[in-house]
Amino acid sequence: MQIPFATIERLAIYVRCLRHLKEQGIKKISSFEMAQHTRTTPEQVRKDLSYFGKFGKTGEGYDVENLLKKLEKILRTKRKWNVAIIGAGSLGTALSKYRGFKEVGYDVKAMFDIDPEKINKKINGIPVYHIEKFSEITEKEDIEIAIVAVPVEAVSDVEEVIVKSKIKGILNFVPVTLNLKTRRRIVVLDVDLTQKLYIISYLIKNKWEE
Amino acid sequence: MQIPFATIERLAIYVRCLRHLKEQGIKKISSFEMAQHTRTTPEQVRKDLSYFGKFGKTGEGYDVENLLKKLEKILRTKRKWNVAIIGAGSLGTALSKYRGFKEVGYDVKAMFDIDPEKINKKINGIPVYHIEKFSEITEKEDIEIAIVAVPVEAVSDVEEVIVKSKIKGILNFVPVTLNLKTRRRIVVLDVDLTQKLYIISYLIKNKWEE
Repeated sequence: MQIPFATIERLAIYVRCLRHLKEQGIKKISSFEMAQHTRTTPEQVRKDLSYFGKFGKTGEGYDVENLLKKLEKILRTKRKWNVAIIGAGSLGTALSKYRGFKEVGYDVKAMFDIDPEKINKKINGIPVYHIEKFSEITEKEDIEIAIVAVPVEAVSDVEEVIVKSKIKGILNFVPVTLNLKTRRRIVVLDVDLTQKLYIISYLIKNKWEE
Repeated sequence: MQIPFATIERLAIYVRCLRHLKEQGIKKISSFEMAQHTRTTPEQVRKDLSYFGKFGKTGEGYDVENLLKKLEKILRTKRKWNVAIIGAGSLGTALSKYRGFKEVGYDVKAMFDIDPEKINKKINGIPVYHIEKFSEITEKEDIEIAIVAVPVEAVSDVEEVIVKSKIKGILNFVPVTLNLKTRRRIVVLDVDLTQKLYIISYLIKNKWEE
């Protein structure tokens, strides 16, 4: 069965919400409350969860811990993922310090750059390698996901390096669409920060100015 | 008419795609090609655009420049927005250097922190103020959007400051849901980087491991 992409996106938000509720000691949650916390509708919550089986009993709500466990399993089967960051500039450095990644099982094992001043040093405890060592290091360290945070001008060089490696998934922060020859085998997700500001502008306009 | 949130999200992606096509000198694009570039379906492209009027003629495709102009207008009516960044740590600093923002009309006018070593200095040419000056400076500089990039521990203090200000929209990078008392009047969009990695893991698993 083909699960809609938007459902997968929301599952990740449900996980975050449930983890927060669990920390607060909350045991049960209704689809109505869940929708409020995650800015969707109770119908959507029920529909999203229905793809994966039957959760909770009508009128009783969901068991927070149990639902969290199941969704975490659906999203990543509790396994750990090793991650590389390509680009040791300010964004790459900020991402290497992002505590959230490690907390949920994503371990940044290596960073890559071309600046001789950065190579063979450590940033936030993470070794920085020359990009020409990308295939070698990612294989050795069993890295499957790469975060791309390089300047636009460097994208085509980075594409070449990625295509030759065994990387399976890419989180792309560069505001261009990556042109990977073996793209159908590599999962690419774009993080376009500008897009988020567009959406806020639209929502502000439609809330405040009409 | 209520436009679905997912449509607004895709419009922002269409804008990015069209801008890229325009740069390459491409004049026409079909909904089929547009869907390929933006990872959706031709039906979805047509449906999304249909909310805003009639674009293009059947069999002729869309005029890239014209469609871009209209979508940009829908999303932000070509106006400029002044932005503040709360938190002058590594993420806030990386975001202040993000060139994409200014290129599309978002101008970071001020940063806020509590670290005496940072206050009254400039980061990337942007003045850093003490957070207690938030209302004063954002009003003076006509700032309507705030980007929140502080540690989790600082969130409740920041919420208080925002609620007292005239800020209309927030882009939140902290992995907790903001609890704004006047939330219904403030547009909040969460950027959860962990969520993106979850989605990649899910897609990798379902492409590679099943």
